[in-house]
Amino acid sequence: METDENRVRAALDVWAEAVRRADVDAVAALHTPGVVLFDVVPPMTVTGLDAYLEQWRLFWDAQGEGVFDLSGLTVVAGPDVAFAYGLLRVGAAGTEGFEVRLTVGLRRVEERWLVVHEHHSVPAG
Amino acid sequence: METDENRVRAALDVWAEAVRRADVDAVAALHTPGVVLFDVVPPMTVTGLDAYLEQWRLFWDAQGEGVFDLSGLTVVAGPDVAFAYGLLRVGAAGTEGFEVRLTVGLRRVEERWLVVHEHHSVPAG
Repeated sequence: METDENRVRAALDVWAEAVRRADVDAVAALHTPGVVLFDVVPPMTVTGLDAYLEQWRLFWDAQGEGVFDLSGLTVVAGPDVAFAYGLLRVGAAGTEGFEVRLTVGLRRVEERWLVVHEHHSVPAG
Repeated sequence: METDENRVRAALDVWAEAVRRADVDAVAALHTPGVVLFDVVPPMTVTGLDAYLEQWRLFWDAQGEGVFDLSGLTVVAGPDVAFAYGLLRVGAAGTEGFEVRLTVGLRRVEERWLVVHEHHSVPAG
């Protein structure tokens, strides 16, 4: 069924697939110009699409195409604002990788769901 | 003006104030029974209101009433789903504390905005 929840899930699947194949244009197309990222490495806050994409370039330089799998995703969607949270397994190809916690905030812009905010983290301590 | 954004900001202010004075009932009243917390300390995922409140009891036991200040909060609100992100300064009374990144997902239940999900983190690295 074509619900907003399903459309948000589809957008996040397209994003994960684009990260796996290091497709910067496909990643860019799913995000707003003002996207704000809380990443697993400093800086504390990454603001704007250019800076956001630079973080991915560093990631791809470090590990190449590899593991980037969403799991246990809960999606809460209204007609024009949504958020989702779950786990993300990240790592170089052929490794088990490690789990990161992920929260994503999205907004519908015309007919497309775009990511406004991402928060990735590992627990401290 | 009574916009959804303002109502969400007001709910988060009430939450921060309730945390500052260690008011467990006021904190509970702002959250859904199924709230999912990604906290700054393990476990990776805290599920349900009882477990959520237990994390606050541990926090209050450790530091008592103290600093718990939201800043730089961006709120994206639709009529029934919203999310917010910004920074949170946390610490014992009389200290500077430290900054944590915060993302919150909310849903409107009848006339009240309730927190469905919180993600608190410090950058790794």
